Amino acid sequence: MHNTAFCRVCFLLLFERKVDRSIAKNHMFSRSDHVLVAVSGGKDSLALWHVLARQGYQTTGLHLSLGIGDYSAQSRDKTEAFALARGLPLIVRDLQEVAEDISIPRVAAFTNRRPCAACGKIKRHCLDATALEHGFTVLATGHNLDDEAARLLGNVLHWQQDHLAKQQPVLQPVHPKFVTKVRPLYLTSEFETATYAFLSGIDYVIDECPNSVGATQLLYKAMLNRLEAEMPGTKHSFVRDFQRVAQPVFAATRNTPPGDCAVCGMPSYGTVCSFCSLVAEVHAKRERARPTA
Amino acid sequence: MHNTAFCRVCFLLLFERKVDRSIAKNHMFSRSDHVLVAVSGGKDSLALWHVLARQGYQTTGLHLSLGIGDYSAQSRDKTEAFALARGLPLIVRDLQEVAEDISIPRVAAFTNRRPCAACGKIKRHCLDATALEHGFTVLATGHNLDDEAARLLGNVLHWQQDHLAKQQPVLQPVHPKFVTKVRPLYLTSEFETATYAFLSGIDYVIDECPNSVGATQLLYKAMLNRLEAEMPGTKHSFVRDFQRVAQPVFAATRNTPPGDCAVCGMPSYGTVCSFCSLVAEVHAKRERARPTA
Repeated sequence: MHNTAFCRVCFLLLFERKVDRSIAKNHMFSRSDHVLVAVSGGKDSLALWHVLARQGYQTTGLHLSLGIGDYSAQSRDKTEAFALARGLPLIVRDLQEVAEDISIPRVAAFTNRRPCAACGKIKRHCLDATALEHGFTVLATGHNLDDEAARLLGNVLHWQQDHLAKQQPVLQPVHPKFVTKVRPLYLTSEFETATYAFLSGIDYVIDECPNSVGATQLLYKAMLNRLEAEMPGTKHSFVRDFQRVAQPVFAATRNTPPGDCAVCGMPSYGTVCSFCSLVAEVHAKRERARPTA
Repeated sequence: MHNTAFCRVCFLLLFERKVDRSIAKNHMFSRSDHVLVAVSGGKDSLALWHVLARQGYQTTGLHLSLGIGDYSAQSRDKTEAFALARGLPLIVRDLQEVAEDISIPRVAAFTNRRPCAACGKIKRHCLDATALEHGFTVLATGHNLDDEAARLLGNVLHWQQDHLAKQQPVLQPVHPKFVTKVRPLYLTSEFETATYAFLSGIDYVIDECPNSVGATQLLYKAMLNRLEAEMPGTKHSFVRDFQRVAQPVFAATRNTPPGDCAVCGMPSYGTVCSFCSLVAEVHAKRERARPTA
């Protein structure tokens, strides 16, 4: 943030102002919007919810219970305790209620794939569907600068033009069933967010998701941390200048809006959306795995 | 190249075919062109010159003597010995003859800057000017896949749109005083080039330039090597897919061709080209450094 040491009170004030400015400057939402905040129970999403509530925004939390053993149980407990202590409304959705056998360990077991990609797909679908169902117009997530930089590096290493075109702190809906998606912490480093959460007395899940061991995102983060150590400010300028210089160039190349998924009716670039394809794959593999009587 | 072990003869054949295919596929030049090959005395440029000569292309080497002590003396010796042994024509230019006090150590001493950026500028100018002066139409350099990937990573981390627009294996002249610039080894890894040079019995300078210690390019290379170890093929797809997907997008955003430098007359995007600006800076600082009588 600044190459300066601040006392607790000043740091909290500066952090909150920085987030508020990011919201205003990028036209993310105003105090008349009712914002759905995706909260995992980790430092970033709880810090975001905390800032938004303190700044007088109308918020409701949405926690997805992923079924990843103790990690998910602890995440849900911390999120519920956070909401209860502050009197903030919280929606909790259990993946098992969304579709049969779609908890992350079941999906991983049936598809024999690394769970992270499937987990991302499932979470995106559930966040979109819940926001639509409850009539929210804005969905906020706690992605921080380190997340954004790692995602950008991955998109760039594979030159995923579609992903580059969509990597924005504010993603306006390209389909009537989508809501505006915003990332108010996109220029706030993981270190700053952790400091804010700690100094605010937020009790968050410290453990990383057990599935993240060896995840590509962590490798990208390690690389970027090494660069940052040698050239401070690299992550910030990488993400900020992408938004300024390159993202508009990629955005200009995209022009096909999504249609409707034939199964669930949510926006989809194919006939069936990737969530419903995944559900179908899991169900087909489960049937094949069943012993024939 | 391939995840297979080859005998010496097969490796040499495959390497040469790969380079030849890269030249043909990218329409770099044909056997009727007379190609000026920039040769530093290192493995990449000597390997390139060797392949081109063996494949029946008409080539002349161009060696720039940079004045970096033993390193430059050894580089010149190895290059001259290589040309002599094969009966290949070689032009040698000493930076001290191009402009006064423009050898790399003098420039570094007078400008108090890391020498690598100045060295790049000086070499580019001298290569362009020599190609023009001798009437060559194609200038080939030995940049390998590792060089291209590191350069691309640097351009991407800083989102240098102009540099991204120009990063191509074939750069067509955008000014009548420019020649076509080609990089036939752009998809050939450093490891492959070193193996080719070794198996061909090429005697090259093994030492890195003494100025390169701590250079940003080496940090980028180390990062990319770490990624490559975890995800083999990363460098290749990073560079190849950039050319396929992203480079055209950036190229489409550029439209101002260079004018003529007011001092040397070579192509320049400003009133005075960056080489002449550097010469002027060095001369001004030298004058100021002189003891007044």
